[in-house]
Amino acid sequence: MRLSKYFLPVLKETPKEAEIVSHRLMLRAAMLKQEASGLYAWLPLGYRVLRKVQNIIEQEQDRAGAIELLMPTLQPADLWRESGRYDAYGKEMLRIQDRHERDMLYGPTNEEMITSIFRSNVKSYKDLPLNLYHIQWKFRDEIRPRFGTMRSREFLMKDAYSFDLTKEEAVKSYHRMFVAYLRTYYRMGLTAVPMQAETGPIGGDLSHEFIVLADTGESGVFCDKALLDQPIPPKDVDFDGDLTSYVRDWTTMYAATEDMIDMDKFQSEVPEDRRIEARGIEVGQVFYFGTKYSEPMGATVADANGQEVPVHMGSYGIGLTRLVPAIIEASHDDDGIIWPVSVAPFELALINLKAGDEECASTCDGLYKQLENAGIEVLYDDRDMGAGGKFATADLIGLPYQMIVGPRGLKNNEVEIKNRKTGERTNVSLEQAVDFLLERIVPERRQDV
Amino acid sequence: MRLSKYFLPVLKETPKEAEIVSHRLMLRAAMLKQEASGLYAWLPLGYRVLRKVQNIIEQEQDRAGAIELLMPTLQPADLWRESGRYDAYGKEMLRIQDRHERDMLYGPTNEEMITSIFRSNVKSYKDLPLNLYHIQWKFRDEIRPRFGTMRSREFLMKDAYSFDLTKEEAVKSYHRMFVAYLRTYYRMGLTAVPMQAETGPIGGDLSHEFIVLADTGESGVFCDKALLDQPIPPKDVDFDGDLTSYVRDWTTMYAATEDMIDMDKFQSEVPEDRRIEARGIEVGQVFYFGTKYSEPMGATVADANGQEVPVHMGSYGIGLTRLVPAIIEASHDDDGIIWPVSVAPFELALINLKAGDEECASTCDGLYKQLENAGIEVLYDDRDMGAGGKFATADLIGLPYQMIVGPRGLKNNEVEIKNRKTGERTNVSLEQAVDFLLERIVPERRQDV
Repeated sequence: MRLSKYFLPVLKETPKEAEIVSHRLMLRAAMLKQEASGLYAWLPLGYRVLRKVQNIIEQEQDRAGAIELLMPTLQPADLWRESGRYDAYGKEMLRIQDRHERDMLYGPTNEEMITSIFRSNVKSYKDLPLNLYHIQWKFRDEIRPRFGTMRSREFLMKDAYSFDLTKEEAVKSYHRMFVAYLRTYYRMGLTAVPMQAETGPIGGDLSHEFIVLADTGESGVFCDKALLDQPIPPKDVDFDGDLTSYVRDWTTMYAATEDMIDMDKFQSEVPEDRRIEARGIEVGQVFYFGTKYSEPMGATVADANGQEVPVHMGSYGIGLTRLVPAIIEASHDDDGIIWPVSVAPFELALINLKAGDEECASTCDGLYKQLENAGIEVLYDDRDMGAGGKFATADLIGLPYQMIVGPRGLKNNEVEIKNRKTGERTNVSLEQAVDFLLERIVPERRQDV
Repeated sequence: MRLSKYFLPVLKETPKEAEIVSHRLMLRAAMLKQEASGLYAWLPLGYRVLRKVQNIIEQEQDRAGAIELLMPTLQPADLWRESGRYDAYGKEMLRIQDRHERDMLYGPTNEEMITSIFRSNVKSYKDLPLNLYHIQWKFRDEIRPRFGTMRSREFLMKDAYSFDLTKEEAVKSYHRMFVAYLRTYYRMGLTAVPMQAETGPIGGDLSHEFIVLADTGESGVFCDKALLDQPIPPKDVDFDGDLTSYVRDWTTMYAATEDMIDMDKFQSEVPEDRRIEARGIEVGQVFYFGTKYSEPMGATVADANGQEVPVHMGSYGIGLTRLVPAIIEASHDDDGIIWPVSVAPFELALINLKAGDEECASTCDGLYKQLENAGIEVLYDDRDMGAGGKFATADLIGLPYQMIVGPRGLKNNEVEIKNRKTGERTNVSLEQAVDFLLERIVPERRQDV
């Protein structure tokens, strides 16, 4: 993409309304524009990140055997009366009347609707296990929305729902999602630690939150340092097999948020030199809640004896619009964002240092073609402006690599390549520049891990 | 995908509430489930089609230079008060109050919001032309929603908005979208004819509807037969160049819907043997509306003389959730849907004729792997049931090719390949089966046209 033809209205000044660094950087880098309290438009640069996050989530959900569908944003109130949640849910639920004065709502979550889809279509235990998911906009009318899309009212969420004949089978479904989540966060360059959690209004008796470690995180986190070195399940992990050992690796050692911490336990279970006290951000939660919805809503199947039994369910959420700022909280510096390659809006900033110089322009044009042909995603800064502003923009929007092309380097047939994260700069010959980048970028895409 | 692990609850009986064939087939083929009047969940098979339609639209929009972003579904009412449309829009607009009693609405379209994004960020003519688009759920509270997703209340739409300094430049932007639309429909296997249209509540003085020809279409269409043979602009069409000749090719010959038909003109301009009277479905509309929104909303740029002038705008819509049933209306038979390869949920049904037969199962398992490795999207019917039900399902859901594997064929080392559209059946040796399919499927994907 040529920057001269792109829409990237970066801000020079830091917006005052933004209280946390990810919100400031998302506004400054022209990823977001606020449209009303807790309502945001995702500008082109932000939308590219959101889509990459979505792709990774979909790939890992599909791999784990979950099947994608799409439910509408609006729901009839009657469905929520069946589960009893229409009255139980407070003012966070956005209630709407249509032109015929029928009660509707903007879905804050989808347990009821997916249960109704299940009960209309599945009759036999032979069709289980089943895990259905969707990625759809949801709405929670927070009284005081803040922190940008970290806590917006309209938000994009992946929610999966599993259906099983028994609790034992349901726990296997839970493990599949648990493993998929570990892989999902890892592929986005995050260190995420599962922690036992309260189940809240979703219900049930088994739940984990996944907490991303970030110095600027919203809540305190206590855990065993050894947890961070646990192995991530590999790409070819057998989701039909026994996943217990992975779950055990990630849940045996002590880990808790400040809400749940038992200090005595933390100090007795974790040797002093392995005690980590850090900050974290919740980026997902998984629940097993048994028959909480299937029983009142009549979601039953015939078991092997022909007996009708309510199915055991779980639900598994990841907030995509929350994950994007969480990645920024975990990865930035004073100059701006530092994207992991796997979720970067573009992988490389190609910077023409001297606009108007014919050799620089034609070399850049040639490199741009070569890089795109090599499958590298390039944002080519071909604008007619000084080098300082180009460097500042490239650092701010945080593309993982920069290729800097100027007259001095070209005299030696060289370009400079900068690693945004480490700051390392390397002079590379024109002939080797594309290969140099491919060697670094391809593994960092984490597509084959 | 193994059908035994998929979620495909096809219906045996035709739902009575469905009045048109696409609605009947989408329900029977388990593409859709109605959740309330005019609200639908897209079940897995339907969702795959919707995503393929989305991919093609995005590719062609990007190619034409439009830039993707994403605006929220809900909008503040104040924005619509600026353009005067908050009061002008009738009961089709779903009006909402949040917990703080602020007036909001579920966006039926986005001219106001995109204009506000533009005016906050673009100040100079040097940043033009600009075309921004998004694909987002919208809501129109139709008094009597019907025909499934052909006329649903919550619907998915691509809407693009162009911004230019002058009318002349705006017409060039209009032409770019016009050409992108011709390519978009063609790639989906559709014959779409642009016809002059009323501009309605969007406003403006230049507009075309794109009408797909289908025997079961909602409205009558009159056009010159020669129109249907006009060339589709090729993949490498130069969007920076002059596109007038393509637009001329597609707009010079007579074409009109029954609402706009001038019979005298039709008969005088079109030789009798080239007069087509057919049925059609509207699947997109493009508008140039000048400064209708930019003027009241203050969306101006400085021109070359430093003068502030309101920008000239256009908007360009395609309803994705309408396009899917339109494709079915244009391509089905008594047995079910006939998908063009480019939008088919899967490209091939692999049918094991004799469940329980060890040789059939192991041959199918091997073919399934080979086909997937060759990049063919396969739905593998590995269920333990009779052949009749499998054939009926494959025909109903309309995958373009079927590969039928049974004991009799295997004795001769052969499988049978059926073309769903022509009904043609060919016996092919096991060794040649994958190549046989690739030769047919790859060009039908229309990725390189």
